[in-house]
Amino acid sequence: MSKTAIITGSTSGIGLSIARSFAAKGYQIVFNGLEKNGDDIAAEVAAEYGTKAFFSPANMLDPEQIREMAAQAEERFGQVDVLINNAGVQHVAPIDEFPEAKWDLIMGVNLSAAFHTSKAVWPGMKKRGFGRIINLSSIHGVRASAFKSAYVAAKHGVVGLTKVLALEGGPHGITCNAICPSYVKTPLVDGQIADQAKSHGMSEEEVIDKVMLKKHAVKEFIPLEFLGETALFLASEQAGTFTGQTVTIDGGWSAS
Amino acid sequence: MSKTAIITGSTSGIGLSIARSFAAKGYQIVFNGLEKNGDDIAAEVAAEYGTKAFFSPANMLDPEQIREMAAQAEERFGQVDVLINNAGVQHVAPIDEFPEAKWDLIMGVNLSAAFHTSKAVWPGMKKRGFGRIINLSSIHGVRASAFKSAYVAAKHGVVGLTKVLALEGGPHGITCNAICPSYVKTPLVDGQIADQAKSHGMSEEEVIDKVMLKKHAVKEFIPLEFLGETALFLASEQAGTFTGQTVTIDGGWSAS
Amino acid sequence: MSKTAIITGSTSGIGLSIARSFAAKGYQIVFNGLEKNGDDIAAEVAAEYGTKAFFSPANMLDPEQIREMAAQAEERFGQVDVLINNAGVQHVAPIDEFPEAKWDLIMGVNLSAAFHTSKAVWPGMKKRGFGRIINLSSIHGVRASAFKSAYVAAKHGVVGLTKVLALEGGPHGITCNAICPSYVKTPLVDGQIADQAKSHGMSEEEVIDKVMLKKHAVKEFIPLEFLGETALFLASEQAGTFTGQTVTIDGGWSAS
Amino acid sequence: MSKTAIITGSTSGIGLSIARSFAAKGYQIVFNGLEKNGDDIAAEVAAEYGTKAFFSPANMLDPEQIREMAAQAEERFGQVDVLINNAGVQHVAPIDEFPEAKWDLIMGVNLSAAFHTSKAVWPGMKKRGFGRIINLSSIHGVRASAFKSAYVAAKHGVVGLTKVLALEGGPHGITCNAICPSYVKTPLVDGQIADQAKSHGMSEEEVIDKVMLKKHAVKEFIPLEFLGETALFLASEQAGTFTGQTVTIDGGWSAS
Repeated sequence: MSKTAIITGSTSGIGLSIARSFAAKGYQIVFNGLEKNGDDIAAEVAAEYGTKAFFSPANMLDPEQIREMAAQAEERFGQVDVLINNAGVQHVAPIDEFPEAKWDLIMGVNLSAAFHTSKAVWPGMKKRGFGRIINLSSIHGVRASAFKSAYVAAKHGVVGLTKVLALEGGPHGITCNAICPSYVKTPLVDGQIADQAKSHGMSEEEVIDKVMLKKHAVKEFIPLEFLGETALFLASEQAGTFTGQTVTIDGGWSAS
Repeated sequence: MSKTAIITGSTSGIGLSIARSFAAKGYQIVFNGLEKNGDDIAAEVAAEYGTKAFFSPANMLDPEQIREMAAQAEERFGQVDVLINNAGVQHVAPIDEFPEAKWDLIMGVNLSAAFHTSKAVWPGMKKRGFGRIINLSSIHGVRASAFKSAYVAAKHGVVGLTKVLALEGGPHGITCNAICPSYVKTPLVDGQIADQAKSHGMSEEEVIDKVMLKKHAVKEFIPLEFLGETALFLASEQAGTFTGQTVTIDGGWSAS
Repeated sequence: MSKTAIITGSTSGIGLSIARSFAAKGYQIVFNGLEKNGDDIAAEVAAEYGTKAFFSPANMLDPEQIREMAAQAEERFGQVDVLINNAGVQHVAPIDEFPEAKWDLIMGVNLSAAFHTSKAVWPGMKKRGFGRIINLSSIHGVRASAFKSAYVAAKHGVVGLTKVLALEGGPHGITCNAICPSYVKTPLVDGQIADQAKSHGMSEEEVIDKVMLKKHAVKEFIPLEFLGETALFLASEQAGTFTGQTVTIDGGWSAS
Repeated sequence: MSKTAIITGSTSGIGLSIARSFAAKGYQIVFNGLEKNGDDIAAEVAAEYGTKAFFSPANMLDPEQIREMAAQAEERFGQVDVLINNAGVQHVAPIDEFPEAKWDLIMGVNLSAAFHTSKAVWPGMKKRGFGRIINLSSIHGVRASAFKSAYVAAKHGVVGLTKVLALEGGPHGITCNAICPSYVKTPLVDGQIADQAKSHGMSEEEVIDKVMLKKHAVKEFIPLEFLGETALFLASEQAGTFTGQTVTIDGGWSAS
């Protein structure tokens, strides 16, 4: 029987790429995100890879909607084997100007949502003796950057949650890990490079090497597809003792 | 001129002990906490050590009250040199039974309050080119225990916030560090030892060695006064390059 | 063209298992180890998986022999793409009784050998713009246990070396990571379980749960084959930004 | 009665500064180092602070001489309360050009010597139920820089040794911690600044901000005296539960 994965924030960017990677391996996918055409995205990916999928518009700030998404997944696909907490928002501002509403939003979407989703899928995973929870944290789950107080706090918080769930899940066949990427090449980033090149009067290559990937020893973005591969590796049956970890993919940033 | 320290959650336990340590060194203290007799506590400590103090009943869940506490401190004592974020709450439950209201409470008091207090004192510290922010995180800011999802997530989050504030504060003479203690001997803990001894049918010594300090290589609680000494060390003028760190005091727990 | 991997300490246990995993994916293998029948082992694995292999008896304490092993590998297979530093020895004793000869031996085999092998393969990897160095460190590369001063020091040292090589390799397509497993199920461990069961008067299951895997939340040994899979994951072309990391596989040990 | 501290590499730089800090607090000092006038240095410091001191020329590469230094200390001062492993050497070169003799030297002085000294003082500390071992590791005990393979490996190794000694010392009143500074202002560094300013065609201030302290958020060197204060803090009677830790003082380097 096919396995099922819920992937939050999966209608674009990293989440969508991971969803494709899992669909390609035969997983049934529960899509979630802000895109209005979520149903179409789910249908297209399902058709492309010959699997099943549906879209849940659950708002990550609403525990009730999160519970409903998990219940629907169990109802339609029989079980949830993998939960990937990927939804996230960002805001950059100095601490003394950081808007309180942005702090609350980032705590809600980037941290508390992962608690609510994990709680929602836990009883089923426990009953079946198998579960894989994968949190898309960030390099900012292990290192800081200035002007990102909320994001760094939330992503560190996710790492803490990851460790607790690993300990609680140990006796029940449930693992929990956090993937901590630095800069991934998404369409969003492509736009940023072009913008920064213009505003700094630099070539795009210089922007990449000296601004965006300044802390990388490897002057390359993380390939989008590699996150899906990493998540599949952690989700595998054999990875049952790999738990409670941060899997940091950062071109050498955190080594230095 | 005397320096001023705001210490949240300082009307009992660890916070009160730290407040005494700072008062003994001549700091003016802004007390804060839930005790109804906060004014008396402030007056007594001030009298005992010949310094000034006042009590703010600011609710750590209310940014407006937090701002007011900081403003009062600046008004009455001219400046805030040291901020110690110590207020905290705990709740222990398995992930699938963890009450959502408790999650929100712990995020609010243990994590978001430290953002609001830091933001409130930041402009003054920046203007004067000196500040010391000390977050009372916990061993659970660096390691997890089962059934403490909210606490561990919040305390890891505080460690993340600590690092960001260190980076932002660097050019302005503001440092930020997190103290991460394991078990401290407070009156609260004394009660727990007696209770557990009764319920496990063990001697109090056995409870300490085999239950409470199971993960300590040093089978002793952290002396309450040592936290104040550690905070004073971090608050000193000379400690200006000591920033962004977790200062873990845990009897060897995290080494193993 | 096939890729080539040198795997030290690969004539038994973890090293042999990793060698099989790589051979199964078509890698040409340079075996190394203390087994007298190393040539036979190399020939058998090569035949089983339809690849090429040879055995080098290079003594890990002798830089000259290490250089020769690397030179032979380049001569016979044209290049070295992957280096897996797996050879290791252990000795357990309290610090005040720890034999100095054992300290030197462990530093030599578990730490300095990885320097010599890396140095030997580096010019070739650099010239070709591709390399993967994978150090089999240990949970003791990130956490300590009593009575293992030399082993823990050497394994932490390997983690340090790993980070430096990641930084130096960044511009040259060379990555370096450390795999840090806790307890892996090898024939050696099977024997220890039986022995301890007898000496403690416990069942084998009790020995596993309460003695050997005491610090695991997941009460299972790391499957031997999973280390090969992890190493293959790190060795892949796509993993070029995954560098300088400790990949800890420990059943939750280090999370708590 | 006065306490006694052995401080290796203490006839100049950081070690001498720490020795002065301890002498000022009444400690009897065992000096050690390469300076030919070690006896004079010991006598001068002893006279200046009204304490006792002697100089041991023990070669950190020779376990026998190390044992003799510890034995002399016990004989002359009755006991060794504090051991500070500070002796260290450095060499900077790319991995493929790193001289093997330099690797061996750095492993010997920066790592193995700390094993030999600790082993030598351990029985006495254990018997008296009190000891403080403080290893001067480095920011390179927790983070790497390119071209410092031996130094980073050795300093990470020291951190590993630190954790083991903390665990073994726990039941005996012996703590062990590692201080991990980034750049400290020593006369040696003053010279480097002037040299680099000349060779880069920069002002000395630019060299400090953009080259030497590039990774610091706080653009200041660690004050030399602060290391002595930190060591005294860790050496205090009250610090008995502070053990197995890295105390990193780095101007925010490792936070980012």
